[in-house]
Amino acid sequence: MRQSKLFTKTRKDAPKDEVSKNAELLIRAGYIHKEMAGVYSYLPLGLNVMKKIEDVIRKEMNDVGGIEMKTSVLQSREVWEKTNRWSDDVVDNWFKTKLKNGGEIGLSFTNEEAYSNILKQYVNSYKDLPIFPYDFKEIFRNETRSKSGIMRGREFYWKALYSFSKDEEEHNVFYEKMKVAYRNIFEKVGIGDLTYLTFASGGTFSKFSHEFQAITTAGEDIIYVDEERRVAINKEVYSDEVVRSLGLDKEKLVEKKAVEVGNIFTLGTRFSEPFDLTYKNEKGEGRPVFMGSYGIGLGRLMGTVVELFADDNGIVWPESIAPFKVHLIELVSKDGAEAVKNKSLDLYEKLLGAGVSVLYDDRDLRAGEKFGDADLIGLPWRVTVSDRTLASGLYELKNRKGGEVKMVNETDLFKI
Amino acid sequence: MRQSKLFTKTRKDAPKDEVSKNAELLIRAGYIHKEMAGVYSYLPLGLNVMKKIEDVIRKEMNDVGGIEMKTSVLQSREVWEKTNRWSDDVVDNWFKTKLKNGGEIGLSFTNEEAYSNILKQYVNSYKDLPIFPYDFKEIFRNETRSKSGIMRGREFYWKALYSFSKDEEEHNVFYEKMKVAYRNIFEKVGIGDLTYLTFASGGTFSKFSHEFQAITTAGEDIIYVDEERRVAINKEVYSDEVVRSLGLDKEKLVEKKAVEVGNIFTLGTRFSEPFDLTYKNEKGEGRPVFMGSYGIGLGRLMGTVVELFADDNGIVWPESIAPFKVHLIELVSKDGAEAVKNKSLDLYEKLLGAGVSVLYDDRDLRAGEKFGDADLIGLPWRVTVSDRTLASGLYELKNRKGGEVKMVNETDLFKI
Repeated sequence: MRQSKLFTKTRKDAPKDEVSKNAELLIRAGYIHKEMAGVYSYLPLGLNVMKKIEDVIRKEMNDVGGIEMKTSVLQSREVWEKTNRWSDDVVDNWFKTKLKNGGEIGLSFTNEEAYSNILKQYVNSYKDLPIFPYDFKEIFRNETRSKSGIMRGREFYWKALYSFSKDEEEHNVFYEKMKVAYRNIFEKVGIGDLTYLTFASGGTFSKFSHEFQAITTAGEDIIYVDEERRVAINKEVYSDEVVRSLGLDKEKLVEKKAVEVGNIFTLGTRFSEPFDLTYKNEKGEGRPVFMGSYGIGLGRLMGTVVELFADDNGIVWPESIAPFKVHLIELVSKDGAEAVKNKSLDLYEKLLGAGVSVLYDDRDLRAGEKFGDADLIGLPWRVTVSDRTLASGLYELKNRKGGEVKMVNETDLFKI
Repeated sequence: MRQSKLFTKTRKDAPKDEVSKNAELLIRAGYIHKEMAGVYSYLPLGLNVMKKIEDVIRKEMNDVGGIEMKTSVLQSREVWEKTNRWSDDVVDNWFKTKLKNGGEIGLSFTNEEAYSNILKQYVNSYKDLPIFPYDFKEIFRNETRSKSGIMRGREFYWKALYSFSKDEEEHNVFYEKMKVAYRNIFEKVGIGDLTYLTFASGGTFSKFSHEFQAITTAGEDIIYVDEERRVAINKEVYSDEVVRSLGLDKEKLVEKKAVEVGNIFTLGTRFSEPFDLTYKNEKGEGRPVFMGSYGIGLGRLMGTVVELFADDNGIVWPESIAPFKVHLIELVSKDGAEAVKNKSLDLYEKLLGAGVSVLYDDRDLRAGEKFGDADLIGLPWRVTVSDRTLASGLYELKNRKGGEVKMVNETDLFKI
């Protein structure tokens, strides 16, 4: 798109109360707007990144047999009382509100009960299972502190999939598939190398749950990493016994700060039994459905990517989730204005024609400002058209990540 | 998709407290799940329809220069106090909730304030205008009554665009473009013929606003329609004087029940002045930004389509927003099971290969049940493969809307 049509502008400073690097950069570059602590609106650039991340996740979910739907935000008391999670004494981060004609309702802080309650209607026989529904949805958590920018929001956009299986064995097969799907997601958004499958606290039905922890000093978790075997242990379950039971060597584990970018959890029958979510097996006997949950916070993932790759000049997006692949910079001098504009527009249209997404900086600003903005916004490739490039018959191409600048002809430009 | 993988099933009855035709049919066919009065979750089929509607709307919004973003659901008191719309005495359908560490916040019931507050940061000069940002978003309204199914939700998904123009003249140009865009949308989702541009109450800055009203007995509004000139007047502003001022003939106006499926509104400076949302004109003089709003409720539109076209057997979707174009019915007999299955699967794959969306009923059910489900679910084309069709070398093709059944060969089948 033409940058002159993008209403956002870069800013020198973020709001004073913004202490996280991710939100500070995203605000300054015009990706998000802070509404209050832990609540952000997504401006056009920010929404574009979120949609890219959403597409990556959706593909992996569909590939493992997931089926997309959308549960409501407003949740009824009766449903959550069934599992004893309505009371604020049990769940301390509910946002609740009141219906005008009486009765308290809640805003989704998670989705287990909503899904079990819905599935109860549709599951009768072993033939109905397994099922893997999921949704993308706004989730609300009444956090006391909210200082990690979009990495821990009071309102945030997530993907949650729930698996409904006949028994633990069937569950385990899917659970392993989801480990692979999650690895694929983190690989595709560019943080695969930095993300570790991490053993974390389980529940009644499994000794451990599994988190995907990305190493960053902005993280709120402490994990112990075995870099060779690409696994880690969350501090919350770390002990000599656990290290031994996982066949790891304590000497090789390194303590790191990390952020949980995804988690998968064996729920067993914790959320099926209270809803009487059962099925008849082949012998006609009633059996409880065996569940698992699989979550990813999209804002947190976006914030983590910013934290991990940003440099002193701004954001650095991996190509897979950058809002645009190319930042085309038109540098107009007093003399050659028309020629540069024509060449820029021509290139813009050719790139679009080739299916390349482009942010075309057609604004009337000085080179320094345009380059500064391009670095801050962080698109993978900067292409400059100016008197100088016109004279050479080449384009100036800069890679945001590595910083290399070189002159390339059109054929090579289209190979990026 | 294979219907055996779709976890929803049709139901004989909707919940007893469901009095609207749209929700009753959508629940019975497995499109939505009722969470409470006015709050519905969208099951896979329902989400599919919503996404189709969303795509139709998005295209039209982008075509008029709209730019998509996403504002937060949680809204801060300070922002809404600026326009005097925080108080429950002024706006009586807020849902409000409390932050754990103090302070009341609201759930978006509309978006004017959120946009003006954000745009305030980015608009300085006449060069920054006009701007047409929009979002798709969950909206929350604390309605006392909620008996119209998905046509009037306490939680609903909408599109709202706001226009920010330099002055009334520039505003009017865009306003007229939006009339056309809205007509296109209602045309594309199949209700163009039944939808009238309707004069409704305006405000300080315009005598009228414009509603798009679709004629249906399920509607809550009364309008007076001039069928020849394709316009109407909402009862709320209907008077002899108004009829005359619009150059209409009272004798030709017919009273109808209708539902507002969209509305466009000249806001003027009502929501810009309180935010000091001004710009410098070419002479350097400060001027208030001139605003307009343009809304469509996607659930309401979906519900209206159901109300308008459903027959005694179930839902009838226009092709543009049907969750799938073709319902492929495999009818397996005892003898020829394998041949029918092979032929069905072969056709399924060919249709998918040709880019046709298909719900493939591969379930082990009797013909009557499958046909009943197909009518209730309401896809535009039903294609049956059975012993009989196999013997004839043809397929049985039924049009859901008209009800015609005929035998066609493969070439003709691919022409639908």
